[in-house]
Amino acid sequence: MPLVRISLRQGKSADYKQAIGDGVYRALLDTFDVPKEDRFIVISEHAASEFEFSRTYFAITRSDDLVIIQITVSATRTIDQKKALFARIAELLSQAPGLRKEDIFINLVEVARENWSFGNGVAQYAES
Amino acid sequence: MPLVRISLRQGKSADYKQAIGDGVYRALLDTFDVPKEDRFIVISEHAASEFEFSRTYFAITRSDDLVIIQITVSATRTIDQKKALFARIAELLSQAPGLRKEDIFINLVEVARENWSFGNGVAQYAES
Amino acid sequence: MPLVRISLRQGKSADYKQAIGDGVYRALLDTFDVPKEDRFIVISEHAASEFEFSRTYFAITRSDDLVIIQITVSATRTIDQKKALFARIAELLSQAPGLRKEDIFINLVEVARENWSFGNGVAQYAES
Repeated sequence: MPLVRISLRQGKSADYKQAIGDGVYRALLDTFDVPKEDRFIVISEHAASEFEFSRTYFAITRSDDLVIIQITVSATRTIDQKKALFARIAELLSQAPGLRKEDIFINLVEVARENWSFGNGVAQYAES
Repeated sequence: MPLVRISLRQGKSADYKQAIGDGVYRALLDTFDVPKEDRFIVISEHAASEFEFSRTYFAITRSDDLVIIQITVSATRTIDQKKALFARIAELLSQAPGLRKEDIFINLVEVARENWSFGNGVAQYAES
Repeated sequence: MPLVRISLRQGKSADYKQAIGDGVYRALLDTFDVPKEDRFIVISEHAASEFEFSRTYFAITRSDDLVIIQITVSATRTIDQKKALFARIAELLSQAPGLRKEDIFINLVEVARENWSFGNGVAQYAES
């Protein structure tokens, strides 16, 4: 069920964006017990004037390759799972497409389980 | 107060997008007791490489016409109202613009009532 | 830690958008005790057919200059702080880029403190 929004600067290839989506999806499988095939990812590219970020906050040196990842998920994970997700995303995206770990910003938005419809107008998780 | 974000693949007409907005707004009126005129909808179109989704998850067959609808609302609705909203959106969007119900993904994000300002720098719902 | 999403109609200059980002950031510093340099802002511009809004809801007269600001923050602020934030954003954006206060729509999404990673795959606020 996660809905993933990825924002980055303009100019990356389709393969590069695909690799980011693959890494986030794989990390969700590995740490959040997300079902296979549960992959819904929206990516938006932005001009420099539409993508403002601190290059220094929290003593982390960010570059123009910064990727902002916001993931909406059901509120069922522990703090340890969240830490594991962040670490796994950073690990996988550093492998492909080769991001610096400093350039990976992640935020989770948590919602109730009944707040999802995957199609057909049904709240699939409210039924189970 | 709902803030609606709609994401879909590039290439649909303005009328098509208008019909989606109309259907979601009407469904909110019908099932969530949203006040008339309370309509704030942002739509973004995406290239194929920026719009990744499972074509099979939950045994639902999705096509390139998939529409992802994320609605931020105050946390005041029951599970039955949420189920009614999902069903009503699917019903109305299947009528116009003629979407397959399998191609309608919906997610609700709930927030506190005082988390809205509709203008003038005032938290209108915190006052009432 | 706020993640700010700003949506507006197409056609504004980079300076105009920069002024909006500056005003929101400054207001967060002034009212939400956000650390200096904690600035992450994504802006998206939309065609008229992708940016639907009521011109009258809540007896507020909105124009095509409407700006929709959605801010994801940790759930640690009081109602009075939220009211102060809304007022301060409206005040600052009315100064620069010179928005009408009626044209400023704000929504807050609140999350747990451990839901952020500012880089390096670490949940920085879960550690402190």
